[in-house]
Amino acid sequence: MPSVALICVGSELLRGKINTHASTISRYLCALGLSLVAEQTVSDDQSTIASAIASALHTHNIVLVTGGLGPTFDDLTREAAAEATGYALELSLPLLREIKQKFKRAKLPSMPPANERQAYLLEKAEALSNTVGTAPGQWLEVPGSGAILVLLPGPPSEMEPMFTGFVMPRLKRRFPAGARAEAHMHFVGVPESVIDQQVRPIIEKYKGCEFTILAKPGLVDLDIFVQEKSVARARACLGRIVLAIQRKTRPSFYGMDEDFPLEKVVMKRFLSQKATLSVAESCTGGLLAKRLTDASGSSKYFLGGVVSYANSVKRSMLEVSREVLWKHGAVSEEVALAMAHGVRSKFGSAWALSITGIAGPGGGTAKKPVGLVYIALVGPKSKKSYRFHFRGSRSVIRDRAVTAALSLLRIA
Amino acid sequence: MPSVALICVGSELLRGKINTHASTISRYLCALGLSLVAEQTVSDDQSTIASAIASALHTHNIVLVTGGLGPTFDDLTREAAAEATGYALELSLPLLREIKQKFKRAKLPSMPPANERQAYLLEKAEALSNTVGTAPGQWLEVPGSGAILVLLPGPPSEMEPMFTGFVMPRLKRRFPAGARAEAHMHFVGVPESVIDQQVRPIIEKYKGCEFTILAKPGLVDLDIFVQEKSVARARACLGRIVLAIQRKTRPSFYGMDEDFPLEKVVMKRFLSQKATLSVAESCTGGLLAKRLTDASGSSKYFLGGVVSYANSVKRSMLEVSREVLWKHGAVSEEVALAMAHGVRSKFGSAWALSITGIAGPGGGTAKKPVGLVYIALVGPKSKKSYRFHFRGSRSVIRDRAVTAALSLLRIA
Repeated sequence: MPSVALICVGSELLRGKINTHASTISRYLCALGLSLVAEQTVSDDQSTIASAIASALHTHNIVLVTGGLGPTFDDLTREAAAEATGYALELSLPLLREIKQKFKRAKLPSMPPANERQAYLLEKAEALSNTVGTAPGQWLEVPGSGAILVLLPGPPSEMEPMFTGFVMPRLKRRFPAGARAEAHMHFVGVPESVIDQQVRPIIEKYKGCEFTILAKPGLVDLDIFVQEKSVARARACLGRIVLAIQRKTRPSFYGMDEDFPLEKVVMKRFLSQKATLSVAESCTGGLLAKRLTDASGSSKYFLGGVVSYANSVKRSMLEVSREVLWKHGAVSEEVALAMAHGVRSKFGSAWALSITGIAGPGGGTAKKPVGLVYIALVGPKSKKSYRFHFRGSRSVIRDRAVTAALSLLRIA
Repeated sequence: MPSVALICVGSELLRGKINTHASTISRYLCALGLSLVAEQTVSDDQSTIASAIASALHTHNIVLVTGGLGPTFDDLTREAAAEATGYALELSLPLLREIKQKFKRAKLPSMPPANERQAYLLEKAEALSNTVGTAPGQWLEVPGSGAILVLLPGPPSEMEPMFTGFVMPRLKRRFPAGARAEAHMHFVGVPESVIDQQVRPIIEKYKGCEFTILAKPGLVDLDIFVQEKSVARARACLGRIVLAIQRKTRPSFYGMDEDFPLEKVVMKRFLSQKATLSVAESCTGGLLAKRLTDASGSSKYFLGGVVSYANSVKRSMLEVSREVLWKHGAVSEEVALAMAHGVRSKFGSAWALSITGIAGPGGGTAKKPVGLVYIALVGPKSKKSYRFHFRGSRSVIRDRAVTAALSLLRIA
């Protein structure tokens, strides 16, 4: 199996910024039947980058480099790659035109001279389009060693579409995966360690089966890969594994497939029932509406919402009575239900969900601590409320509250 | 300055799990005046770990290793460190007693035999207490090279308290911080390359001054580090640099310090003016409200918002007239202004901002393409509207629209 190494260039990654490249890239490689075997992060120093590239090209079949393709003086990956491979950098006039046009289209002042550096390609390298930013990537098959060197931009929003759009198809052609099948399973409301305990004995019975578990706040993703003698056998084996896991993990299992966030499950359910939804949010401050509208097409069922951060807004926009607010406090089952009823009647939706809680770090008391969250769900024939106590930072509490709300909506 | 390298051990870090160790550790090192100069991640393979440690001890003064200290068969960092340094592992009876007691105190069944491995220390190494889990750390000053080798547990919840509680005090004693000063500057609405052009000539005049530029969607961060003969001189030098940059980069410069997101600048401005704000969002679907409420304390000025995803909601909740919607379409200057007026009058806020646009991927036309966004800002004495055309994916367009809105609010 070809060996893949990742070199992340960027002093900021050694000064506090979290590096997500290894995580992103290793998951995509896994889908191709390839494994990331080593990662290293180096600072924006040309000779350091060059010696990291040279030594990786010596040891590995595929060397991916992220970062250092920007226009500024500390973007030195192009020069370092030239130093490591012995190839010269050459100005590509088509690339230069493309970069200038990007500035024009974005109605920015004309391209600063510094950006010309981004139009330099290694001799014999192929340029990879950047659909988001200005820095093109580069794909170079180094003749002597047969190794492949790929230069990718550092910002994840530019790196990821370039990797999936241009690098993966080329890797797939060069390294056909053989008889493989894969599945992606998603779970909600259960710790990573519990999924691991439930899943490991099922998967370890099969040879040639690999898996990765990835935890996000309130969610767990499981990727399963099966390598077999034929595709039919791989698929059959995978089918048995998935079925056994579904049985074992109910009801935390909520969906399959690569691009299957919880909001899409919710959308599918509401569309199939031809039902509409509105939401009222307090402590999550719009995050639930944001998540629901992350799914393109959500306008077909999601009418909108009210962010009732101030109590006055809970009264005026959601018709929560002064008495209920005064008697039970803004963070209470009663107010959650009143908010849901209010937004449902104002928006005329079939369903309505509300969230009220204390995201912290301030505002907690002994009786109503930070992390206490009430969620109410009101439908044509039902009303229900739920009490949660989440732990963690403000942002983790808000994330978990929204995940819990989405999980309730998927089984509404 | 001593050179610090980090080796992260763990196959899971090469299979999708996000590695936060470099981020956490580099920030703590920075506070000590030390810099992380290299990071690498290796799989749970003893000889790979050993050769990574041996080569790092050869090049760097301080080598930090995380992970592989657990009780299971794939936890091999202790053995690898012994192989790399030539020191034997010795059973420490006090450590063994401590680990056994931890099981007792946690009311777990008695210690499994596997955990005995965690009581083995490298000859001459000092054990570092683990206040959360069972795996002790190790601190070893390698006599020949004078290099320091530190073994730390992999789970961040165990690594971080051990690092701050036991490693930092030892590093501080061994490497008293020199005369350093640092500043973090933030810019909005300007490309990375423009900031570089403006900043580079200012900074390059000073020796002993380092900086990094980091671009995020719509934002640029600049970190500046100054090393001088005394702290007073470092601070004075840094002060001059920062002032010159502030002058040069106006109005894109918006704030200083490490933790200074745009929503905090907006909050500061509204609090100082004792003004209140409400928002109406269409294509951003709640993301602006979410960002505003990311700042703890935002309830003091932010009343809330309406996510008017459906046109019926723009009419009923924001009193946008059917005629304006019909004549100009939902994505238009006129509707943006009507939405802002509507939410302002409904919420009774001093200021109101609205966003309407086409986030894509569907819904674009030749006249109104994907990425077209109108933002309107209405205050006590003013109303203004702005037209943007953002490029990128649905999520990038939504992010950029919200960043633009926050930037307008900071100078409202």
